[in-house]
Order: sequence, then structure tokens, then C-alpha cells
Amino acid sequence: MSSTLQTIRFGPHRILTSQIFFTSKLSYGLVNLKPIARGHVLVVPKRLVPRFADLTPDEVSDLFLSTQTIGRVIEKHFLGEALTMAIQDGPAAGQTVPHCHVHIIPRRFRDWANNDDIYAELDHTKVDNEARTPRSEEDMAAEADQLRPLFDQYQDC
Amino acid sequence: MSSTLQTIRFGPHRILTSQIFFTSKLSYGLVNLKPIARGHVLVVPKRLVPRFADLTPDEVSDLFLSTQTIGRVIEKHFLGEALTMAIQDGPAAGQTVPHCHVHIIPRRFRDWANNDDIYAELDHTKVDNEARTPRSEEDMAAEADQLRPLFDQYQDC
Repeated sequence: MSSTLQTIRFGPHRILTSQIFFTSKLSYGLVNLKPIARGHVLVVPKRLVPRFADLTPDEVSDLFLSTQTIGRVIEKHFLGEALTMAIQDGPAAGQTVPHCHVHIIPRRFRDWANNDDIYAELDHTKVDNEARTPRSEEDMAAEADQLRPLFDQYQDC
Repeated sequence: MSSTLQTIRFGPHRILTSQIFFTSKLSYGLVNLKPIARGHVLVVPKRLVPRFADLTPDEVSDLFLSTQTIGRVIEKHFLGEALTMAIQDGPAAGQTVPHCHVHIIPRRFRDWANNDDIYAELDHTKVDNEARTPRSEEDMAAEADQLRPLFDQYQDC
């Protein structure tokens, strides 16, 4: 996959394809601009729809088969002991990018002082309040480059 | 569906079928013993597996097509403005029942003082600490009775 100046849509944003580490027929796996933990990645349907209910059955299946594959690989790669998987489905649930997506976060015992403080980190208000510094394009591309070979056997296209 | 003394397995627990409001080919929709919000329900694969990675492709698709259907109906019924959907996939992610399941929680703006405090509520330590009182079987059966007709058109079996 060429990464030079090619982009995909993620809500109103344009994401460089250098940040994509996984592609299925109907979904992408993206590294994250502001990860809340190492290995926090996103799974995004190729078609831009805001809500989970907007997805077709084929898109739902592809999104979560992709999530299963990515979760399995990411957990192992980042030495996780478990995974948190979540959809913030609508602004009232903390969704900030109006393009349906699944968060996958590798977890370890005691990774947060209180196990589920992780979820507050997903909150847009918290992200905004803490002004978490976005990573550089180079950092994200480097992570995607590292992950992409792990998925060679799973790529649909 | 007869609800008298019939049970299904949910991890090590036996769940009365009176608490089931939705059935697809491979999944159930259950009301919740300790909901953290009105309309907080669970979607559970019929086959007992602890982790999301253990599900077959057909089970993954069925689980999330069921989640989509249930989410759409539950959000409307409980006057939600959004949904939180989450899998605590493994004990290190807060999973307390070792049987893979999806949480669906209708959300509204300002339903928690801080939008994503909801997630801390999903934490088993918090649940345990607060000693949230479990609902009675009668309460749960009454809610399932109320919900079941909303899914008549979706039942696979």
C-alpha cells in the first residue's frame, strides 16, 4: 500500500493511509492520534456513517470480524492480558468523530489505578481538558509500519 | 417461549429464560441483574466461550447483528440519544462473568455528571464496592416481558 499523500475519510478528517495497518473488504484498522494506552487502535467502516445502526449487515459483520482479528493480534503484540472494545455510538455517548468506529485497547491488570478509569480517558471532555498532545504523523506511520506485517495473512484487499 | 423454570447458561450462572427478551440463531438478549442505567442490557452468544477471540465468524456476525437490532430498539424505547456498547474482554478488562458478552447502555446528554463516568460503573470493583442491590427475578421478568414484543419481527427462532 502506498502511503504518499493518499488519504481516507474518517468523519470530517482526512487520514493518511500511512496510518492504516489493516484493510478488509469494508473496514480499516487505524493507529490513533491520541491513544490512551499503547496499542489503542481504531476499527472504522470504509463507508462514512455516523451511527452503528446505519451500517448494513455486511458492514456490521466485516467490522467485528476485523475487530476480532485486530484484537487478537494487538493484544499479543502489546503483551496485553485482555481487551477493552467499545463503541461510543453518538455524541451523548462521548463520540467526537461522527464516523462509527470501534476502540480496541489492550489491557493489563493494574494498568490503571482503578481498573476502569480507562473509560474516563475515552471521554472527549477529558481528552480536551487534558489537552493530550497529538502524536506526529511520523510516529503514527512508524507504528502502522510495525503493525502492518502482522496482518499480512488477513488482508482482504 | 415458556419461561417456567427453564434456564440458559451465562458463564457459571443459570439465567431464567424469563429474563430473555431476544433470541437469534446464535445469541440471546438478556435484561441485567445490576443495570447501571435504565435499559442496560446484555447480548450473549449461546455458546459459552470466555473471550471474543473464541467466537466463530458466524457467532461474531450474529452477536453484532443482534447488538445492532437490540441497540436500535432499546435506544428508542428508553428515549436514549446515543448508545454505549462495550465488551470487557477478559478479567484484566473488568470482565466478571467468564462468558463473552456485549453491554448495551442507552445514553442521554448529562446522564452522568461527567459523561463517561458511566464506564467506571461497569467496573466490577465499583459494582462490588457499592454493593448495588440485585433486582428481583420478578422485576427482571417484567422488564423482559415489556421488551419481548418489540422484537417480534426480529426473532430467528
